[in-house]
Amino acid sequence: MSALFTIKKESETGKSRVGCLQLPHGSVTTPAFMPVATSGVVKMLTSEDLLNLGASIILSNAYHLHLKPGEDLIAAIGGLHRFMSWQRPILTDSGGFQVFSLAQLRSVTEEGVLFRSHYDGSEHFLTPEKVVQIQAKLGSDIAMVLDDVVPHPCSFEQAKVAMERSLRWAKRSLAAHSSDQQVLGAIGHGSVFPELRRECLLRLCELGFDAYAIGGLSVGEPKDLMWQMVDLSTDLLPKDKPRYLMGVGTPADIVTAVSLGVDLFDCVLPTRMGRTGTAFTSFGLVSITNAAMRRDERALDPQCLCPCCQHFSRAYLHHLFHCGEATGPRLLTYHNLFFFLRLMERIADAIAKNSLDALQRDITELYLASAATRHQGAGGPSDQ
Amino acid sequence: MSALFTIKKESETGKSRVGCLQLPHGSVTTPAFMPVATSGVVKMLTSEDLLNLGASIILSNAYHLHLKPGEDLIAAIGGLHRFMSWQRPILTDSGGFQVFSLAQLRSVTEEGVLFRSHYDGSEHFLTPEKVVQIQAKLGSDIAMVLDDVVPHPCSFEQAKVAMERSLRWAKRSLAAHSSDQQVLGAIGHGSVFPELRRECLLRLCELGFDAYAIGGLSVGEPKDLMWQMVDLSTDLLPKDKPRYLMGVGTPADIVTAVSLGVDLFDCVLPTRMGRTGTAFTSFGLVSITNAAMRRDERALDPQCLCPCCQHFSRAYLHHLFHCGEATGPRLLTYHNLFFFLRLMERIADAIAKNSLDALQRDITELYLASAATRHQGAGGPSDQ
Repeated sequence: MSALFTIKKESETGKSRVGCLQLPHGSVTTPAFMPVATSGVVKMLTSEDLLNLGASIILSNAYHLHLKPGEDLIAAIGGLHRFMSWQRPILTDSGGFQVFSLAQLRSVTEEGVLFRSHYDGSEHFLTPEKVVQIQAKLGSDIAMVLDDVVPHPCSFEQAKVAMERSLRWAKRSLAAHSSDQQVLGAIGHGSVFPELRRECLLRLCELGFDAYAIGGLSVGEPKDLMWQMVDLSTDLLPKDKPRYLMGVGTPADIVTAVSLGVDLFDCVLPTRMGRTGTAFTSFGLVSITNAAMRRDERALDPQCLCPCCQHFSRAYLHHLFHCGEATGPRLLTYHNLFFFLRLMERIADAIAKNSLDALQRDITELYLASAATRHQGAGGPSDQ
Repeated sequence: MSALFTIKKESETGKSRVGCLQLPHGSVTTPAFMPVATSGVVKMLTSEDLLNLGASIILSNAYHLHLKPGEDLIAAIGGLHRFMSWQRPILTDSGGFQVFSLAQLRSVTEEGVLFRSHYDGSEHFLTPEKVVQIQAKLGSDIAMVLDDVVPHPCSFEQAKVAMERSLRWAKRSLAAHSSDQQVLGAIGHGSVFPELRRECLLRLCELGFDAYAIGGLSVGEPKDLMWQMVDLSTDLLPKDKPRYLMGVGTPADIVTAVSLGVDLFDCVLPTRMGRTGTAFTSFGLVSITNAAMRRDERALDPQCLCPCCQHFSRAYLHHLFHCGEATGPRLLTYHNLFFFLRLMERIADAIAKNSLDALQRDITELYLASAATRHQGAGGPSDQ
C-alpha cells in the first residue's frame, strides 16, 4: 500500500507541518510520538492504558519479537495487533540498531548479519529479505528496512561503507516487500557526514519509499551536528512523505526536530525515566525519590490532568518508590507518556497558530539543561 | 462509633449469613474479601484498579505503615484514605502478627513489644495503646488490637500465656481507643486449644467489641483443627457483630469458613500467586509460565469477564512473564482479585438461595487439592 500522508498545515516561516498519516489500522495526526513497546508491551502498561493516554501509534521491535516469542507464533495468534490487543497503528523497527548495539555481532556480510541473541546466546542470521518477512508476519502498519548501523564516532570510510550497504539492503527490502497492508520505511544513514547523508537520501528517494527515517543519530554525537544532519535531511526529503527521526528524544529535541520538518518520533526516555523515578512536568524534571518529596502533599505536576497527578501526592509516589512497589514506576511511566503525548498536541497547536518558536524557547529553557546530561545513554536499545 | 452490622439473610440449615457492615467510608456487603494493601498499595495495582474490581474494603497494615512512611506523615497528608486515594473502607491490621513473624523480636513484656524493623534494623517499641494511636492517625475504618501471637506448634502453656496477655492488651486497647470514626476489632487467640479459644472469646465478648477476629490460624496447623477452632469461635461470638478470619485463604477455605459463619477475609494468595504466574480460574489453577501456554490462543479463563481475559491470550501473558515484563504480574494480580471478588458475590448469592453446600462442594473439588500444598507459607507477612 501507499501511505496516504496529507499535510494539513505548514509553518509560514519554517519547515514544521501538521499532517495526517492514514495507515491500515487508523490515522495518525503528526507530529506524533510513538511510545516504545519493544517486546509487544510498553513496560509497566497495558494496551488499555495506551488507549486512555490517547496514543495513536506505538513502536515495537522486529529484533526482539523475532527472538521472543518469534514472528510465527505471533502470526499464528493473528498478528501483533491481536497479540497485544492494540487496534491502532504500530510501527516496527527492523532491529538493525539492536543487532549492532545489543546482540553479540558475529559478522556482517553483503548477504546479511550473523549475531548471537542477547537473551540466550543462540545464533541467528538476518537478511534484509528475512527482516521484511518477519515484519510482514507481525503485520505492523509501518515496517522498517534492515540497516547497517555504525557507532559514533566513526571514520568517513566506515560510515560510507555502511551507508552504501544500507542502500543496497534498502533496495533488496523494497524488492522483497509485497504487503499491501503495510508501509515500508527507508532509513537514511551517513553518520555526521553531510555528503554521505545527502547521497544516501537522494538514492533512497530515487528508489521511492512511503516513509523516510533519519537513522544513526542521537547516539552520542554533539547536538549541533545532529541538527545539521536533520536539517539537510528534511531539505532533501519529499514533502509529501512522513519523516521519522529515530530514537529522539527529549521534549526540547522533539520541538526542535519538528521545527526542522520531522513528523514522527520514538524514544525510551519517558518510560525509562518514569520507571527510575524521574517525571517530566510543566516546570521541568522532578526526581520523586528525592528526600524533599517525602512529605510533599502536592501533585507531581499540579497542572497535569493525568490520573496520577489527579489522585496522588508526591509523598505517596515517593513512598511507593521507597518501598519498591511497582505501582510507583507504573504511575510515573503513565504520567511521562501523558506529558509527551500532550506535548505533541501543544506542538500541533503551536504550528497551527504559527507560534512554534515561542513553544520551542519555553520547552528548551525548561528541559535542555537538565535533560541533556541524562539523555546520554537514553537512546540505548537494551530496554525502554 | 459502633459498627452497624445488619444481617440480611441467614442460612436456613447452617451458620452462613449475608450481612451489611456500615463503616465511616461506606458500606460493605459480607461475606467480603479484603485485598491486601500492606504498605498502602495492593502490589502492582492502583486504587482505580480496586474501584474497577469492585473491592468494597481493603486491608492495610499498621506495622508496615508505622515503619514506612510513618503514621504522622500519613496523618499530615490527611490520613490513609487520602494518602492512597481510596475512599472506601479500610481495615488496618495491628501488626501483631508481623512483629512476631517478620521483625527481629527483642523482648515481649507486659508493657509491649520491643523489636527491630525488618527494613533497616532500627529498634521500635510498640504498646497496645501506641498501636491504637497509630491506627487512629491512619484513620482506618476498622482498627485491630495488638496481640501476642504464638507460632504453630506451641505448647498449651505457651498458648495460654500469650492468650492471656492478648486479652489484657485488648482491654488496654479498648481503654485507649476513643475515635468515633473507627471500629475497634478484637482478636481471639488460643492456638489449637479449644478451651483457650473459648475462654479468650468469652472474655473478649464481656469487654464488648464491635468486631471480632479469629487470629493465629492458617499458620501451618492441620486444616481440621483450623475448622474446629473456627466452628467453636463462631458458636460463641455474638451474631450481630462481624467475624473476621485473619489471613484466610484459598477459595475452598473461604467458602468453608463462610459456611461456619465467618464474614470477613484477607489473604495474600490472589496477589502473590498472580505475581508469580498462577491464576485462579473457573476450572482450577493455571500456571501461565508453563511451556504449554506458549502457543495457547485461549483466554486465561474463557468464562471470566475481567479485562485480562477479555483482551489477552495465554500466549501473550506467557510472553510477558517470559520477558520479565511487569505488565504480566499486573494483569494476573488483577485477574485473581477479580476471581476472588466474584467468588464472594457467588457466595452471597448461594446463601440467599440456600445453595452454599453445592457451591462449597464445587469449589472444594476444583481447588482444595491443588491449593492446599501451595497455601503453606502463603499466609506469611513478608509481602502480599
